[in-house]
Amino acid sequence: MVISVKLLEGKKVAQALDETMAKRVESLKEKGITPGLAVVLVGDNSASAVYVRNKQRRAEKLGINFQLIRFEESVTEQELLAKIDELNNDSAIDGFLVQLPLPDHIDEDKVNEAISPNKDVDGFTPISVGNLWIGTPMTKPATASGILMMLDHYNVDLDGKNVVIIGRSNIVGKPTAALMLERNATVTITHSHTKNLKEITSKADVLVVAIGRAKFITQDYVKDQAIVIDVGMDRDENGKLCGDVDFDDVKDKTSMITPVPGGVGPMTITALVDQVIELAEGRING
Amino acid sequence: MVISVKLLEGKKVAQALDETMAKRVESLKEKGITPGLAVVLVGDNSASAVYVRNKQRRAEKLGINFQLIRFEESVTEQELLAKIDELNNDSAIDGFLVQLPLPDHIDEDKVNEAISPNKDVDGFTPISVGNLWIGTPMTKPATASGILMMLDHYNVDLDGKNVVIIGRSNIVGKPTAALMLERNATVTITHSHTKNLKEITSKADVLVVAIGRAKFITQDYVKDQAIVIDVGMDRDENGKLCGDVDFDDVKDKTSMITPVPGGVGPMTITALVDQVIELAEGRING
Repeated sequence: MVISVKLLEGKKVAQALDETMAKRVESLKEKGITPGLAVVLVGDNSASAVYVRNKQRRAEKLGINFQLIRFEESVTEQELLAKIDELNNDSAIDGFLVQLPLPDHIDEDKVNEAISPNKDVDGFTPISVGNLWIGTPMTKPATASGILMMLDHYNVDLDGKNVVIIGRSNIVGKPTAALMLERNATVTITHSHTKNLKEITSKADVLVVAIGRAKFITQDYVKDQAIVIDVGMDRDENGKLCGDVDFDDVKDKTSMITPVPGGVGPMTITALVDQVIELAEGRING
Repeated sequence: MVISVKLLEGKKVAQALDETMAKRVESLKEKGITPGLAVVLVGDNSASAVYVRNKQRRAEKLGINFQLIRFEESVTEQELLAKIDELNNDSAIDGFLVQLPLPDHIDEDKVNEAISPNKDVDGFTPISVGNLWIGTPMTKPATASGILMMLDHYNVDLDGKNVVIIGRSNIVGKPTAALMLERNATVTITHSHTKNLKEITSKADVLVVAIGRAKFITQDYVKDQAIVIDVGMDRDENGKLCGDVDFDDVKDKTSMITPVPGGVGPMTITALVDQVIELAEGRING
């Protein structure tokens, strides 16, 4: 028996999309437009610094004008809001984000709400979230959007599929639900209070796992021939990078599965950069 | 065998809540605050006129200052937006809504987005929808909120329950999903593209039906001892008012079920009026 499992290789998809995106940037530059992305980074959280550096590298590689705006941990809320106001009005910047977490003395909600929805590349402001659920998204949260871009690349049609999402975060679970519902999937959102998780997940044509628990999902959670998407970035008992899904245990039962690393992760930055380019393309039509 | 089905009698719940709400209004008036609700009605759609009259009657009965603002069908978008701006800044008005549908020459989205989220009693603006999904609701869509108020009245705990919603409208299905998720239910959203509807609904501890098809849900769709909530307002083959659920066929299989009429319907206006009072109470703390 030949088992045919298709890896959803986000890393390769991202590389393929990079070529198209680089061409889009080139074409914009011919029209005198350079897409601009700014990231505001407060303090010196080392994880945040890594995330920002990855965004910067990818953006610059594609010819996007990247601005890193750093503040000391001691920055006041007022100073931060003033900078956001400046970025909202800076015509060279198509989109920007404030890297979270922020120091305790700064109100994250207030900062978030100050970002113009037209430039909200993270898609986390109330207006952006509202438009996403209403079905008229302006910008989309990058991880959710990256998952959809990856599935599109592999021609997965979500229409009428039973999608089960584990995890209801505002960053991943909920926006993924919104986007998949928009693609006409039947969507179930499960979480820590869900009582019969295994029974529910084992009915899923598409299973999205975003809970942050190493190798939590084993094959008894998975339907035969399911598509499994692992958003987790955990460490196993040997300190090795792994996902929320026990890949080796699950993979032969699936039709498609994302590896970790190299699955959803690289698609997140792809989606972010794609969004910046799209916003810049929007300048042409005003 | 005694079959014990409990009717979820929205009409009676609404009457009971009216007493409490009237007291809250009284207590506000003692502090010099009269809750104010305005409704903007364009043209002479007869269904809209009935909805507005029902809101007016209920609001006035509770001592709320109700303002009906009527425009001719020919009103311009600009005139309408000017009125919204006025209401946004009118300190006597705690909340208002623009009754839909609007004439074709007016952009509903634009009108909707002009409403201040602090006064958006319908909860349909992007900011309100976003805050609802983020988990920090300012106002909540009335039908969804009314369903929750009714379940609370009957002490139904949604935590860990499997909730299945049929219908994904922005007015009912999606906001109900958001509120029930916030109550720690496991939520599945189904719709016209769902392929195995019966299989899914027959696993639901709580089934919410909002599809607008007379008596569509028969007992084979329903789990034993389920709670069934019928948002439909349809006409049966004899022109008699009925719901999306075939009440007589289903009721003995459920533990609780809403009748139509007298179930969800009366709760919708209750939730709207409750919201206006809550917004007025907010004036005390600024």
